[in-house]
Amino acid sequence: MKNYFSAYSCVKTIFVLVIIISFNLNAQNSPFGIVVHGGAGTILKSNMTPELEQQYSEKLTEAITAGYEILKNSGTSLDAAEKVINILEDSPLFNAGKGAVFTNAGTNELDAAIMDGKTLKAGAVGGVKHIKNPISLARMVMEQSKHVLLTGDGAETFAKENGMELVPAEYFRTERRWKQLQDAKAKEDSLKQKKGALPLNDEQKYGTVGCVALDKSGNLAAATSTGGTTNKRWGRVGDTPIIGAGTYANNSTCAVSATGTGEFFIRAVVAHDISALMEYKGMSVQQAADEVVMNKLPKINGDGGVIAIDNKGNIAMPFNTSGMYRAYIDNDGNVVVKIYKE
Amino acid sequence: MKNYFSAYSCVKTIFVLVIIISFNLNAQNSPFGIVVHGGAGTILKSNMTPELEQQYSEKLTEAITAGYEILKNSGTSLDAAEKVINILEDSPLFNAGKGAVFTNAGTNELDAAIMDGKTLKAGAVGGVKHIKNPISLARMVMEQSKHVLLTGDGAETFAKENGMELVPAEYFRTERRWKQLQDAKAKEDSLKQKKGALPLNDEQKYGTVGCVALDKSGNLAAATSTGGTTNKRWGRVGDTPIIGAGTYANNSTCAVSATGTGEFFIRAVVAHDISALMEYKGMSVQQAADEVVMNKLPKINGDGGVIAIDNKGNIAMPFNTSGMYRAYIDNDGNVVVKIYKE
Repeated sequence: MKNYFSAYSCVKTIFVLVIIISFNLNAQNSPFGIVVHGGAGTILKSNMTPELEQQYSEKLTEAITAGYEILKNSGTSLDAAEKVINILEDSPLFNAGKGAVFTNAGTNELDAAIMDGKTLKAGAVGGVKHIKNPISLARMVMEQSKHVLLTGDGAETFAKENGMELVPAEYFRTERRWKQLQDAKAKEDSLKQKKGALPLNDEQKYGTVGCVALDKSGNLAAATSTGGTTNKRWGRVGDTPIIGAGTYANNSTCAVSATGTGEFFIRAVVAHDISALMEYKGMSVQQAADEVVMNKLPKINGDGGVIAIDNKGNIAMPFNTSGMYRAYIDNDGNVVVKIYKE
Repeated sequence: MKNYFSAYSCVKTIFVLVIIISFNLNAQNSPFGIVVHGGAGTILKSNMTPELEQQYSEKLTEAITAGYEILKNSGTSLDAAEKVINILEDSPLFNAGKGAVFTNAGTNELDAAIMDGKTLKAGAVGGVKHIKNPISLARMVMEQSKHVLLTGDGAETFAKENGMELVPAEYFRTERRWKQLQDAKAKEDSLKQKKGALPLNDEQKYGTVGCVALDKSGNLAAATSTGGTTNKRWGRVGDTPIIGAGTYANNSTCAVSATGTGEFFIRAVVAHDISALMEYKGMSVQQAADEVVMNKLPKINGDGGVIAIDNKGNIAMPFNTSGMYRAYIDNDGNVVVKIYKE
């Protein structure tokens, strides 16, 4: 009887070990991937210095590498996406976090959103002024509240109540962005005299950052963070914190993060439309992203781009502007950074 | 030669007249329609008095009749939808405009959105405190700015700059809603001591108003207005002003206005998903609305309903709660008001 049990235990142990090993082997072989953007717009090589190009390239490489390491070590796509965005938010190069543009009132008002493709849970913040890493507050909204979108002072009260440290408004003051505001206002004044429209140059307009990731467990996540547009007023909120417009993730299809003139991305419900084209029309992630960015958006004069990754790890990065800061990891595990059209 | 011209002129005049008459006949026969909701929730006959039932019924009838008259006289779906919502916003019965619920801070913070199915243009406001008719401000954002979503004090500055009169905060104070806030806080305190969740009763939660319309020119419009949820805090914004979630219109498919627990409607991108199921899977408006409200939303515990109308005038009004205040015009031109499940 004792032998019988012992044999049984032995078989059971071997069985469990085989399961664990095959699960791990499976996880080792599971596809995973990550894509990052740092904004789309009229980014021309003729306007760029080699030094600035290198700065962007290095920061994008640092960010995507940090996210990739998390995924490689079987971390979650949410952790990877948040980490990537944190690094870009902390850099003055991008229009998010530290490098956010100024509003007409001379303040910095930040928006961010994150979405979990497994649960369809989402968190977003709009118009926060004292949050160093808005994407981490968006995640806190998703995980620590029953809400999706918190705005303004209220969102900051929520942050404080949940132990997040606020930073003084001066943290976001960079001379480059301050000068952009003055330039925008001067241009506005001169155009007002001419009763013309009020276009912004692209450097003042773009620079939103985003990340989409697939982890080894097959879970997708999308994250986007922005300072909006230079000289914005009236509490304007763009597409970034709007789930379905600038940010969306759904394990059954894809994860998407957008960048561009937000109003058009809201009207076209860009991120969810890409998911819907995959789910309901059977398009690939490349076909769906191309259809929305290269065909539908231009019909309403919407300019910008998206990054997307599907639940098999296939990626797409279409944009209808002259450039989009973007990075991905190729099949050999190497970081590839691109800025201009191919 | 003179006779020739005279004959030619005569033929031309007759030709133009025939065109004008057939165009008008065509417009006379063009399908048009309108649907209204006043919120979904646990609305039980056992909790209702005949007097209150009649008040709701009369106000919904007044509102939809006003919208219907506009459409019958070849007015636009945007004008009809705005007019309907204005009437409901001015009534203390519904959780929008005058009857808005109170936030945790004892303020009233209103959200609204409107969308034009012809141009895919949209306007929305979030967290405004001194706007008598938020839907009219949303329309002003759509038509007088290049933005879609304006929030908080900034949205009110925009209103003032465009000549809209602000009302004092006291305008929104109704004793019924004030008592609901006190009840919600008392319940919260007692639940905090028990460390439980913080559920709201439905009367405090619902009452959003919405309208979808198709005009004789084949143009769809959707409009939604709300005070959000009683005792809300942290600058919470629900699905109402989120294009694609609580409000969406697209001439190629349908117009949708939603009501329910907003967070779930944002996560499910409800209004755009109904449109996408029609456009990409060929579903009817009834099938698509049922699929999202009766199948997809319950899977993430989302409770509420939608009203929808397609570009032929077919309507759907599914809800997964015990009731939804709703009204439509039947084929004979009669107003039909319903509150409970059939």
